[in-house]
Amino acid sequence: MALTGTRKWLNEVIFGTDTPAGKYFDVVLIWTILLSVALVLLASVQSWWVRYGDIFFALEWFFTALFTVEYLTRIYCAQDRRSYIFSFYGIVDLLAILPSYLALIYTGASYLMVIRLLRVLRIFRILKLVRYLSDANLLVRSLWQARRRILVFYASVLVLCIIFGSVMFVVEGPKNGFTSIPKSIYWTIVTITTVGFGDITPHTAWGQTIASMTMLIGYSIIAVPTGIVTAELAHELGREKQLARCHNCGRAGHDADSEYCKHCGYKLEDFEPTHGD
Amino acid sequence: MALTGTRKWLNEVIFGTDTPAGKYFDVVLIWTILLSVALVLLASVQSWWVRYGDIFFALEWFFTALFTVEYLTRIYCAQDRRSYIFSFYGIVDLLAILPSYLALIYTGASYLMVIRLLRVLRIFRILKLVRYLSDANLLVRSLWQARRRILVFYASVLVLCIIFGSVMFVVEGPKNGFTSIPKSIYWTIVTITTVGFGDITPHTAWGQTIASMTMLIGYSIIAVPTGIVTAELAHELGREKQLARCHNCGRAGHDADSEYCKHCGYKLEDFEPTHGD
Amino acid sequence: MALTGTRKWLNEVIFGTDTPAGKYFDVVLIWTILLSVALVLLASVQSWWVRYGDIFFALEWFFTALFTVEYLTRIYCAQDRRSYIFSFYGIVDLLAILPSYLALIYTGASYLMVIRLLRVLRIFRILKLVRYLSDANLLVRSLWQARRRILVFYASVLVLCIIFGSVMFVVEGPKNGFTSIPKSIYWTIVTITTVGFGDITPHTAWGQTIASMTMLIGYSIIAVPTGIVTAELAHELGREKQLARCHNCGRAGHDADSEYCKHCGYKLEDFEPTHGD
Amino acid sequence: MALTGTRKWLNEVIFGTDTPAGKYFDVVLIWTILLSVALVLLASVQSWWVRYGDIFFALEWFFTALFTVEYLTRIYCAQDRRSYIFSFYGIVDLLAILPSYLALIYTGASYLMVIRLLRVLRIFRILKLVRYLSDANLLVRSLWQARRRILVFYASVLVLCIIFGSVMFVVEGPKNGFTSIPKSIYWTIVTITTVGFGDITPHTAWGQTIASMTMLIGYSIIAVPTGIVTAELAHELGREKQLARCHNCGRAGHDADSEYCKHCGYKLEDFEPTHGD
Repeated sequence: MALTGTRKWLNEVIFGTDTPAGKYFDVVLIWTILLSVALVLLASVQSWWVRYGDIFFALEWFFTALFTVEYLTRIYCAQDRRSYIFSFYGIVDLLAILPSYLALIYTGASYLMVIRLLRVLRIFRILKLVRYLSDANLLVRSLWQARRRILVFYASVLVLCIIFGSVMFVVEGPKNGFTSIPKSIYWTIVTITTVGFGDITPHTAWGQTIASMTMLIGYSIIAVPTGIVTAELAHELGREKQLARCHNCGRAGHDADSEYCKHCGYKLEDFEPTHGD
Repeated sequence: MALTGTRKWLNEVIFGTDTPAGKYFDVVLIWTILLSVALVLLASVQSWWVRYGDIFFALEWFFTALFTVEYLTRIYCAQDRRSYIFSFYGIVDLLAILPSYLALIYTGASYLMVIRLLRVLRIFRILKLVRYLSDANLLVRSLWQARRRILVFYASVLVLCIIFGSVMFVVEGPKNGFTSIPKSIYWTIVTITTVGFGDITPHTAWGQTIASMTMLIGYSIIAVPTGIVTAELAHELGREKQLARCHNCGRAGHDADSEYCKHCGYKLEDFEPTHGD
Repeated sequence: MALTGTRKWLNEVIFGTDTPAGKYFDVVLIWTILLSVALVLLASVQSWWVRYGDIFFALEWFFTALFTVEYLTRIYCAQDRRSYIFSFYGIVDLLAILPSYLALIYTGASYLMVIRLLRVLRIFRILKLVRYLSDANLLVRSLWQARRRILVFYASVLVLCIIFGSVMFVVEGPKNGFTSIPKSIYWTIVTITTVGFGDITPHTAWGQTIASMTMLIGYSIIAVPTGIVTAELAHELGREKQLARCHNCGRAGHDADSEYCKHCGYKLEDFEPTHGD
Repeated sequence: MALTGTRKWLNEVIFGTDTPAGKYFDVVLIWTILLSVALVLLASVQSWWVRYGDIFFALEWFFTALFTVEYLTRIYCAQDRRSYIFSFYGIVDLLAILPSYLALIYTGASYLMVIRLLRVLRIFRILKLVRYLSDANLLVRSLWQARRRILVFYASVLVLCIIFGSVMFVVEGPKNGFTSIPKSIYWTIVTITTVGFGDITPHTAWGQTIASMTMLIGYSIIAVPTGIVTAELAHELGREKQLARCHNCGRAGHDADSEYCKHCGYKLEDFEPTHGD
């Protein structure tokens, strides 16, 4: 069923990006989302909440009202209402407004506030329609191609962490902060990823020797995901550059830094990859 | 000598993966191993051991009994008993049950508990049979190809750490935490791998200058193993993609993201590399 | 309008690098800049300022006088005065001397001192004329080619940091140092980039579990920009090596480590890429 | 002048590696060096020195005597004595024994002990003769090819560190540990290289925001040297694999994992690159 009248126009503005009104709506929405997210961040600072609590409260309801209207309008003008409501972004849209209403019933639940931060995910929906996302696609596709290799890699890292963690637990023991095997594994992950908080550190000579080995191994290991991703990314990048087509004559095979189509001289700036998202 | 009767059936179930019973056995075994490993981890937490010590003790014996039965059955139905017992996984299987029995004789040895964690290695045997491991092979082969380069690299890093460590020992001295050359070398490894615990830090101006140099050098050095692994991985990846064959027509040369054989249209999802493990 | 007489000669010396006097001027200027930057750095050390304050003050005015003379001479002998004054380096030249004069009016403003450090940017102008910068061009071009990918990457990392930061705020709470969501996000950035200061660390079991996940994800993520830059750099490097021309016969296509032109035997040491900056 | 008699035989044993005696001498020397280095490391531990000081002292003189005899023999049997004495390794050989003799005159100088650690460099001379070093050559050549790029990169990082360091000095100030600009630059290097000791950390909201930016930038920057080295290494690796020749028929072009020459079937295990060191 094709939409007609106001519903069709609303659909074009809210879901579409091709009309000027649709583009304008998207820009306004992005800023509204960013402002509402900034509000949640600032409201979590104790001293500011004490001082500006009333303003934060009022602004929060202002944004909630805005997003509620938007949510209801989206349901009203959606092509297929059921599929919108139960889609990923439909649920995110609901979660973005629900906490404020729930806070009326259950008071003082700080994690309700956090759910509001999921609003930030809504930005991706809008960006999805813009050409920037074709680059994200390349990244996502590279990671997807490498998913099994990354899984195998993580499994090996975890086994390594369990073994090194247990050895450190035996060598250093509870008196040096390695109070349990899970905590030793936490320390091993902190060390092998080169984060190194320093909240737990080895104190015995043997502990420091094993820690040194852990670090040097982690050092080599950090190379593996980089190698996997780089290899896949270089492959994808090569394919994309090969496949990109001119908008005018439709022919492909341009260099990555070409500004004009080498077949017809058309400006290439808006050219895009041929593969779907 | 070919196995017959019950022994043959047990061998298929326990060592094989082709029959439904064999697959089912593997899945159950993986979960049993993971649960028993989780149990050892949790039992090492002091407060939980005090509270649930009895339950942990009972569960530990339950798993030990299970693995003992499995171990004996494996010996019973193995094609070649001697070679199973002295194989890598045969010894891991034994080490997975031995600590519990030894604990009856020697009490209170915490490292006996840790040996139990070697059970986690048993998971690799099962995974070995699944297709995920062909990716591990690629990783392992890349690392193996690069083994000499990595060795040379580690030797250079160690010499660098000894030299920088000694210099820091002279510059900072025991009063700033650099109590001995081995400890200074430990600090240098912590720094050059960018872990940076912060348990020992330079306090003098010269010490901080040399530390800065150490970090900037470590920064460049971290690029070397990455470069080695990436170069090898890209080479191996290229070869693998070139060699992969269709299961139906047996022809190779498909793109990495092909879903259907370009020669016969057969679904490629289960295609696998031609080289052995 | 072509410059004549003294103005022309000054222009060649100050802006040019082809005459011996021009090269000599550049070398002297680089050392003067480095010394004046070192002076600002040392003058910021409290104990040295107390002891050698007078010397620092005198030297600072000496350098200011020198740079003022240079700035005025540059204006005097510039081809197009207006465009020099409002160019990037023209403003940097002004900012390099302004703070000393402003300090006569507003006293005790420590950030005025910091603005002097912008002098360090002046070194790039001089280097720009030397062949070293053709390598910088390669780096800059690679980063520029990858700008959209890097933007998409940073956006995803920020969203990830907001989500993980909020979860840590809920799990750990103010009593463990996670006093607000912005501070939790700061902790997440510190952790996901593997810096790991250790000023804020998780203390609860759940917090440490989520922290471990954050680290392991950050571990994989660190591979992405490396992959992007490597892929672009390898592409650019290949193009540059292909395009480099011999100065004698003008033919290209030499190997990266060729010392003599393979077409005419001319020494290649000073060969340079054909593309402009 | 060709050597004769005992001098020739000694030269073959000490400098050469082709005779069995020469190989045996190298192995013994490597172990002696490693033991003497280990001795210096252990002697620097205060508590061990107090307890085993006499043994350390005796062993040190034993090793010094050994290396003195070796040094004199090397001078005696060198092809060209003068060029040996003033060569890099000739000076390292002298520095390896000098500190012990100097300690008789100047007592208690701890940095004399450190000079002894330069003995570790002697290992490289021996390794130089072994085939492992052809891999080091590849690494060194890659780094050498990329030297200008790496220089430009370091210059940019330093300028970035100076600018970020000064900003942090202004924002955080002495009361939060950023006591001077050099110290702030030290902090910036610690942060941008993702080491993150945590001895100095930002405490103000603005400081933490700028620190977050520093980290995210450092995050991207860490990709640059990796990209440079990887691109060069991949190029060198490709060339080496292409150039490697069979020892039997002298033909090149084998795959990296070939075990037998594809032209004549000769075992390739000892094949080596054709380019000189």
